Amino acid sequence: MNIPRIDLPRVVILGAGFAGLQMARRLNPRHYQIVLIDQNNFHTFQPLIYQVASAGLEPDSVAYPIRKTLHGKRNTFFRMATVSCVDFERRVVETTIGDLEYDKLVIATGASNNFFGNTAVETNALPMKSLTDALDLRSKILGNFEQALNTRDLNRREELMNFVIVGGGATGVELAGALAELKNKILPKDFPDLDLRQMRIDLIEAGPRLLGNMAENSSTMAFDYLRELGVHVWLETFVETYENKQVITKDGGNFKTDTLIWAAGVKGNLPDGIDASKIGRGNRVVVDPFCQLESHPEVYVIGDSGMIVSEVYPAGLPMLASVAMQQGKYLAKSFNKVAVGKSIEPFTYVDKGTMATIGRNKAVAEISKLKLQGILAWAVWMLVHLMLLVGFRNRVVVLINWAWNYVNYNNGLRLIVRPYVNHLADRREPELMA
Amino acid sequence: MNIPRIDLPRVVILGAGFAGLQMARRLNPRHYQIVLIDQNNFHTFQPLIYQVASAGLEPDSVAYPIRKTLHGKRNTFFRMATVSCVDFERRVVETTIGDLEYDKLVIATGASNNFFGNTAVETNALPMKSLTDALDLRSKILGNFEQALNTRDLNRREELMNFVIVGGGATGVELAGALAELKNKILPKDFPDLDLRQMRIDLIEAGPRLLGNMAENSSTMAFDYLRELGVHVWLETFVETYENKQVITKDGGNFKTDTLIWAAGVKGNLPDGIDASKIGRGNRVVVDPFCQLESHPEVYVIGDSGMIVSEVYPAGLPMLASVAMQQGKYLAKSFNKVAVGKSIEPFTYVDKGTMATIGRNKAVAEISKLKLQGILAWAVWMLVHLMLLVGFRNRVVVLINWAWNYVNYNNGLRLIVRPYVNHLADRREPELMA
Repeated sequence: MNIPRIDLPRVVILGAGFAGLQMARRLNPRHYQIVLIDQNNFHTFQPLIYQVASAGLEPDSVAYPIRKTLHGKRNTFFRMATVSCVDFERRVVETTIGDLEYDKLVIATGASNNFFGNTAVETNALPMKSLTDALDLRSKILGNFEQALNTRDLNRREELMNFVIVGGGATGVELAGALAELKNKILPKDFPDLDLRQMRIDLIEAGPRLLGNMAENSSTMAFDYLRELGVHVWLETFVETYENKQVITKDGGNFKTDTLIWAAGVKGNLPDGIDASKIGRGNRVVVDPFCQLESHPEVYVIGDSGMIVSEVYPAGLPMLASVAMQQGKYLAKSFNKVAVGKSIEPFTYVDKGTMATIGRNKAVAEISKLKLQGILAWAVWMLVHLMLLVGFRNRVVVLINWAWNYVNYNNGLRLIVRPYVNHLADRREPELMA
Repeated sequence: MNIPRIDLPRVVILGAGFAGLQMARRLNPRHYQIVLIDQNNFHTFQPLIYQVASAGLEPDSVAYPIRKTLHGKRNTFFRMATVSCVDFERRVVETTIGDLEYDKLVIATGASNNFFGNTAVETNALPMKSLTDALDLRSKILGNFEQALNTRDLNRREELMNFVIVGGGATGVELAGALAELKNKILPKDFPDLDLRQMRIDLIEAGPRLLGNMAENSSTMAFDYLRELGVHVWLETFVETYENKQVITKDGGNFKTDTLIWAAGVKGNLPDGIDASKIGRGNRVVVDPFCQLESHPEVYVIGDSGMIVSEVYPAGLPMLASVAMQQGKYLAKSFNKVAVGKSIEPFTYVDKGTMATIGRNKAVAEISKLKLQGILAWAVWMLVHLMLLVGFRNRVVVLINWAWNYVNYNNGLRLIVRPYVNHLADRREPELMA
């Protein structure tokens, strides 16, 4: 890889998500040469991609060019590449654009969908993890209705108008709520010649309640909100397979659908080369409280792909944006301290709260001991997400979209820009002529 | 196709561009059943797609969902489909989702790129006509620089950093100017480890001047503006072929480039089935001054795909958005009049002026006899385009983007969202390791 060697230790950071980007931005370039690698040229604000999928926000508002975040920063290099493997002995990262030596390596490769080995689901379900997933999903959802108009096969129309979301965490709950609002407020106006009451949204969760990482009270509230919006919630229901447009659950349930959206879990997204004995639950690399790999102290793992086990968190810190951001900041600070001979402390996570929005005026939020619901939680949710977005322009545009939607439920972002039209062509019905 | 037969004449409109959309929105549904067909579910504001390509605007701002424009309109149907053929004898339109009978047919299928039979260019050049073209081009342009960083082959780097635009009309001139501003103001900050002086933009025009449909004065001004911005303009230069990353011109010129952008002409985009004798210059259907096909008086052609020849316009009315919009409005009005037994007038085109923007404070505009240049023309250009955009939200977001760019040249929309990363993977250079 074309990176000049200079007289400073080279820190290679894999991944420009919440952890990697914080790390790269805060690391002091007087002490280190910094190389940031990501497969995309943009950072994605994942908590809002479900709104891209449900046609509430445009993709450009929830993403930010990585190069722009590094403007004017000396000794700092970004490369768009996919990392295949790390050779820990030679201290070399292998990527699609060549190899790169490191002095210190920071693995911040995040997480990807966990299908728990279910290949039938993996093959046929739609993921909701990246910006391109969200764009594909938006085109698919809107395309389904265009297609439903063109069929007189009622079974087929049902498949097209049923949406099944698996996973009752924040992503699943928020997407189910957003789809329900599309159904109730926007689609009937867009498709006057389609009976939108036939649209059905099922949310399936294997555990006993929604939003498992929040308080019981919040779970119940989210359940009630979703029911109010018309979403069918199934708790303690385990998806066994998805074949021939049918989702089959363990208790014999059967959901007919063309669109299964998988939000049921994530796993660490790791490059090859990591010693299997270091990989713990959820495919995360076990590191010490300094985010350091014991066997290779020059290697650090932060964010979703790393796992610090403590007494408070025996299963590791949760896979959340806030943990990732705090670890990125922490590690940059540690590196900067070490460079000037200062001592460092282990990482401590400060839980700033959790929240989820279900719909207009409908949200739940827990901020330390404070538990909010309804319009207040919703306002807090919006404020926090606006503040966390990277870039002033993005904040303004997102705010306009939200305000617009609040007033008239209709911002007009319902473009099918992915090549979905080909699917329509498959369903030609020349014999049916009006 | 699933459209109910009702007791009103059925008007089928092919294409939801400037002409078709105006027609569909203004036609009176008390007198007609209206069916609008387009291959996309959105209307594209074509005059601004070059700014999507040059990362100045997001795609969602220059497009608008067709269904939303028809909200609440009775007896009106939209279908997303590609029209393959019209059977004028049976009065049937054949599409990817089935056949459809019509009583009156309005062909408003617009125009597509004209490569004038040059297959070498057609295969290898990038078009700039649709929203997806613009998105592909944005990813390609930004991807080229990511790729240029990874090569030490100076010849290859040159190919990647040279951009050749063919066609000195408004699209070519505006895109060349936008690319030059990217080069001068934005890319050097994004790519500090690349020598952006090596980036080169060539604009090739076969005719003797730029903006051929404007006054001599405006052409000269546009030429000077582009030269100021560092664009190399080649007049009276005819592209012969584009092969092996080389553009060859008739006079023996040779331009090395990975990116040839074709903006050198358009031709009518017609469904099959039209009598060849009715098709005139530029693949446009010759119609009478009522936009009517002589041989089939129930068929009308408006916008770029139709051609009305008059004394003032012996080669047909120009292929412009303003002509298309005026014809859409005119034809809806005519239909509405005919339905109540009123008499109709032939179409007359009111030339409201032409304009092109080259860069910040650099534009030319001609409004009847008034000729503007510089910052004033630029302000008028922005105002007119903002007013013509469909949707208030789009106007606000575009205005914010422009204001933002004006202040700091940097709105941060430089996302590579098309699958360009695969191209990067092809260029792996494992032997080069720093």
